[in-house]
Amino acid sequence: MTNSVPVTIRRARRDDVAAIVAMLADDHLGRARERIEDPLPPAYFSAFEAVDRDPNIQLVVAENGGGEVVGCLQLCILPGLSSQGASRALIEDVRVASHCRSQGIGEQLVRWAIKGARAKSCKLVELITHNSRVDAQRFYVKLGFQQNHKGMTLRF
Amino acid sequence: MTNSVPVTIRRARRDDVAAIVAMLADDHLGRARERIEDPLPPAYFSAFEAVDRDPNIQLVVAENGGGEVVGCLQLCILPGLSSQGASRALIEDVRVASHCRSQGIGEQLVRWAIKGARAKSCKLVELITHNSRVDAQRFYVKLGFQQNHKGMTLRF
Repeated sequence: MTNSVPVTIRRARRDDVAAIVAMLADDHLGRARERIEDPLPPAYFSAFEAVDRDPNIQLVVAENGGGEVVGCLQLCILPGLSSQGASRALIEDVRVASHCRSQGIGEQLVRWAIKGARAKSCKLVELITHNSRVDAQRFYVKLGFQQNHKGMTLRF
Repeated sequence: MTNSVPVTIRRARRDDVAAIVAMLADDHLGRARERIEDPLPPAYFSAFEAVDRDPNIQLVVAENGGGEVVGCLQLCILPGLSSQGASRALIEDVRVASHCRSQGIGEQLVRWAIKGARAKSCKLVELITHNSRVDAQRFYVKLGFQQNHKGMTLRF
């Protein structure tokens, strides 16, 4: 990987919520789904608290050398009976701030998650990515993922 | 739906583990992944205990009129910041015993999960299904799911 900018990956704090929501919204799909207001709708903070107290979920941010939050990722470790009772890991909400893309930040986040999944003895890491995110699919293939499933969703 | 056999959907118990693992293994993908031995490898029971004590996960079975376990499904409710802090639901490990297929049992299980997701204020239900499970994909489309994502996996 060329031009990789090293970042610190750390657990998200309540005062990161605005930066995370801004990244979630800065996207052709996220734009319609999020509400960027000042102050942010309280539901974002309630969700942060639910995530923060869940021992199976890690919401992390990538912080650059200047202390700016430039990426995020949520990793869930899910116990289950299949594959001989191995837990599996689910990666969600991977985002990199638009002015910091193509600098290897997403790769550092996903490699962090893969390492975390291995450390928790998972045998499988899974994620779904919208059909329209062709660049993301190429990115995950480069990191070793196989595009061997359909991701199906029902939105209320 | 024709020929629907009503089943009772209830929380899985430790003494259902063998029946659940048998269904997970009775499948072209599961066959290579599971270990059917008597007694079952203890990892299955450890995994059951982890699932059973996790407040965000419900592992359920479908029981027919004769008290036989003929289906299973795992529903995870995952908090997260995206979609205005709405939790999302993940459906996993849906199986129906091979001698009981095409009797509406899978549909009853998935409708139970959708109802459960709504009750927990989720805005999204998601699942991944292997590319080779074409019948499953048709089944989920019939229940309202959109095939709008790629499911990507990394197996260790």
